[in-house]
Amino acid sequence: MKVKVVADILSANERIAAENRELFKKNGVFVINLMSSPGAGKTTLLEKTLAALKDEMKIGVIEGDVATTADADRIEKIGVPVVQINTGNMCHLDGSMIKSALEEFDLAGLDLLIVENVGNLVCPAEFNVGEDCKVMLLSTAEGDDKPLKYPLMWHESRSLIINKIDLIPYTNFNLDKATADSLTINPSLSIFPLSCRTGEGIDAWYGWLRENVSRR
Amino acid sequence: MKVKVVADILSANERIAAENRELFKKNGVFVINLMSSPGAGKTTLLEKTLAALKDEMKIGVIEGDVATTADADRIEKIGVPVVQINTGNMCHLDGSMIKSALEEFDLAGLDLLIVENVGNLVCPAEFNVGEDCKVMLLSTAEGDDKPLKYPLMWHESRSLIINKIDLIPYTNFNLDKATADSLTINPSLSIFPLSCRTGEGIDAWYGWLRENVSRR
Repeated sequence: MKVKVVADILSANERIAAENRELFKKNGVFVINLMSSPGAGKTTLLEKTLAALKDEMKIGVIEGDVATTADADRIEKIGVPVVQINTGNMCHLDGSMIKSALEEFDLAGLDLLIVENVGNLVCPAEFNVGEDCKVMLLSTAEGDDKPLKYPLMWHESRSLIINKIDLIPYTNFNLDKATADSLTINPSLSIFPLSCRTGEGIDAWYGWLRENVSRR
Repeated sequence: MKVKVVADILSANERIAAENRELFKKNGVFVINLMSSPGAGKTTLLEKTLAALKDEMKIGVIEGDVATTADADRIEKIGVPVVQINTGNMCHLDGSMIKSALEEFDLAGLDLLIVENVGNLVCPAEFNVGEDCKVMLLSTAEGDDKPLKYPLMWHESRSLIINKIDLIPYTNFNLDKATADSLTINPSLSIFPLSCRTGEGIDAWYGWLRENVSRR
């Protein structure tokens, strides 16, 4: 019975996600579902990325959090349209939450929409929101054992950003192991080791974004 | 309908958690439900704690992970009884998973049982497993904005370990802000800033454990 209910919820979500996807396609918007553990640096990555690219493409942001508008407040300061979704105790965003938030955007005027999911390395990977692809972050401070411990998130993502490489000297994070384990789970994963703090490696991520937005 | 099902699941869990709690009480075991984001340092904290205290009290460990036995393998090396639960895609431990795992322990011979939950700052806070109290970790690398963004976890916990204080010089983590926000949500929270890596501050945590185990 419980399994049936979960299956119903997932299939209802897939229907709404498909509607969102159709809408994105019609309006020519490339959509990213950005996921990670709490505190891996999703919002900081967005701040850097928006500041660097907002003059060359039109970007919108949806912020998902259990509580507070702290992240949307940070994004708004950069001068980019942003909507905050507060999920209450829900541990992930789903298609219907995104559908409601879309009413706040002029979709036809956007090139790129980034959905920052709730900080959670498990549940968000199960719920499509209509995105073109999922992108995930891993912070080096979280440890290099995470790919094998949270395989679904790795499996579902098209790109992996390994953030906070500036902290590697102060941790026991092994970048080669994290990279190898990530590619074992998902051999087609594009991996970008970078530091939002120092800027090291971040240009490769911008390049990936430009390429995907240009061929949307 | 969905809300009703969720309520049913939570109340069924409460019944099993109450049975577990009764069993723990009968056997005189103090039980901690240890929670945090992925990579905040739960297993490393356990390694240090077990090595320091295993000769003065009998400790057992239940490890919860989506996948792998990596954490149980680490604990087993210290010579403490440990059971690994793999949850598949489930994002938290619940009462029935713990009930099954208990069959592997000689409960009457234990003073302390530590349940390391799945790395997740949202869902585990909703599911009691029969514990005496919840203890949570926050890594300084996750940022000082987490208490207000994940209030339920803070609200449900009796103690907060702020781990990786050795990384503070390399991050923008503000310990005073994190402490103040934590106490705003939960004024009775015991807070232990420490570094599992350097050992700084960890004796206060051992003291708290000794006190709680001795008066169980």
